[in-house]
Amino acid sequence: MSLLVVGTVAFDAIETPFGKTDKIVGGAASYIALAASYFHRNISLVSVVGDDFPKDFLNTLTSKGVDLAGLQVKEGEKSFFWSGRYHNDMNSRDTLDTQLNVLEAFDPVVPENYKEVDFLMLGNLMPLVQQKVLNQLTRRPKLIVLDTMNFWMDIAMDELMNTLAQIDVLTINDSEARQLSGEYSLVKAAQKILTMGPKVLVIKKGEHGALLFNKEEVFFAPALPLEDVFDPTGAGDSFAGGFIGYLAKTQDISFENMKRAIIFGSAMASFTVEKFGTERLINLSDKDVQERIQEFIDLVQFDISLV
Amino acid sequence: MSLLVVGTVAFDAIETPFGKTDKIVGGAASYIALAASYFHRNISLVSVVGDDFPKDFLNTLTSKGVDLAGLQVKEGEKSFFWSGRYHNDMNSRDTLDTQLNVLEAFDPVVPENYKEVDFLMLGNLMPLVQQKVLNQLTRRPKLIVLDTMNFWMDIAMDELMNTLAQIDVLTINDSEARQLSGEYSLVKAAQKILTMGPKVLVIKKGEHGALLFNKEEVFFAPALPLEDVFDPTGAGDSFAGGFIGYLAKTQDISFENMKRAIIFGSAMASFTVEKFGTERLINLSDKDVQERIQEFIDLVQFDISLV
Repeated sequence: MSLLVVGTVAFDAIETPFGKTDKIVGGAASYIALAASYFHRNISLVSVVGDDFPKDFLNTLTSKGVDLAGLQVKEGEKSFFWSGRYHNDMNSRDTLDTQLNVLEAFDPVVPENYKEVDFLMLGNLMPLVQQKVLNQLTRRPKLIVLDTMNFWMDIAMDELMNTLAQIDVLTINDSEARQLSGEYSLVKAAQKILTMGPKVLVIKKGEHGALLFNKEEVFFAPALPLEDVFDPTGAGDSFAGGFIGYLAKTQDISFENMKRAIIFGSAMASFTVEKFGTERLINLSDKDVQERIQEFIDLVQFDISLV
Repeated sequence: MSLLVVGTVAFDAIETPFGKTDKIVGGAASYIALAASYFHRNISLVSVVGDDFPKDFLNTLTSKGVDLAGLQVKEGEKSFFWSGRYHNDMNSRDTLDTQLNVLEAFDPVVPENYKEVDFLMLGNLMPLVQQKVLNQLTRRPKLIVLDTMNFWMDIAMDELMNTLAQIDVLTINDSEARQLSGEYSLVKAAQKILTMGPKVLVIKKGEHGALLFNKEEVFFAPALPLEDVFDPTGAGDSFAGGFIGYLAKTQDISFENMKRAIIFGSAMASFTVEKFGTERLINLSDKDVQERIQEFIDLVQFDISLV
């Protein structure tokens, strides 16, 4: 089945307690497409970069089966750039610099042969841009997953609510779930958000794992306890990529299969944080992924027989 | 097998965003003994109260199979009293008042028929008092579990380290694990603490679950996502009580069985936080416990077959 990934392809400069980088490749769609590519080959990317963006990375995406027909390359313009510094606990960060560049006037164009796509992943972007993608589709996808962030809740809540009404799965973090719902309890927050449009909600809790809710059920996927979290950038996007990549591969959008999908998503996130940027996610083997999944199984599986 | 529980039996006065209590029954050993009593009947309590302590609660303990021969009742003295106020996030609290009273000169006396006890739970207390209990035993227990807190790391680290060298399982929370080890990563913290004496470490993360480590393995038990956490007081003690109660019942101290035991511990903690004080823990049925365990199974069990 076809999978369309929409989001930023960009430059990041990152400082963590373990070191700092110059401009390296980042962006939500980069992480999503890379993570999804370990499960699914029929992927198309809708995004925009400037002519400063490295061809090497684009070739890497192509080599992993990502179709770049929907990637606009703006001559004479610069790619989106974000710079941030993580605090010692790695759970919070300060933005040092944001240069929108090509994103400022980004008008997404869905390639003709992806207008009837089966799986759609709307990575974190301005809700109006996410909406523009939805408007170009000629058939409703089997599954629409959307990621967003507190920034859009602060400045574009109406547009965000309009977009939420049209999607199937929302992925946000715990503080965003609280902000969106006005509820502190994540259980109450989930029930409220599930009246806004999404039928399924994923609440990402970083090093504390992720919760998967529908109206009747709840499932919890742990994060892998790691010796060091080197760079959390892209963890949530890698999670989303593993999640939708696994669903697209298995063509099964039941809640049972979504449980498996968030374990695969958690596994991809656990790789991403082990090195700066996309480095770790580029060179995984299938064996690496399988072994990591086994670690998740060992981490939480227990055997209690109730009478 | 016999189980000896050492710790405070006391009064608490608690404020949470949901309300406040007058003096109600609390204390680590109260919660531990109550939680353990759902799994095991052969329990003895070593503690101290004043003559102001309600006979009703002591009768409740007796009715649940808790032997009070080791509970000293000091005539003319007052029971230990703690008062605290929880912040809105329920993860942090301020101590408003601490009155040591009978605890000040507490000299624990282990009843003769418990000096060869099989399972020993040393609830949070001054390390020297925990040590005095160990010194009275005439045979090493099959399993010694110790709970402690940051307060003793601040003022009695040497005594704490001496006691740690003699135990099997340590239960502390995440910030205490970081303080004790000087490591931020919980994986690194665990490996360091496991060189201090304990062969197994449980790191309690409150609403984020609990981690179980030995030198080679790690297991994660989630906390149940609850609509409301009403009063977190006693959650960690209830966890410890469920943990050691289940181990004493099954007489199996393998790592595999400890995985089950921390699920039972997490279940008991999830009950405790639903009401103020010990209220919820007093009136559970076996069916309540079984249903709660099933909720934990449903929360984390998934089915991934690796090739």
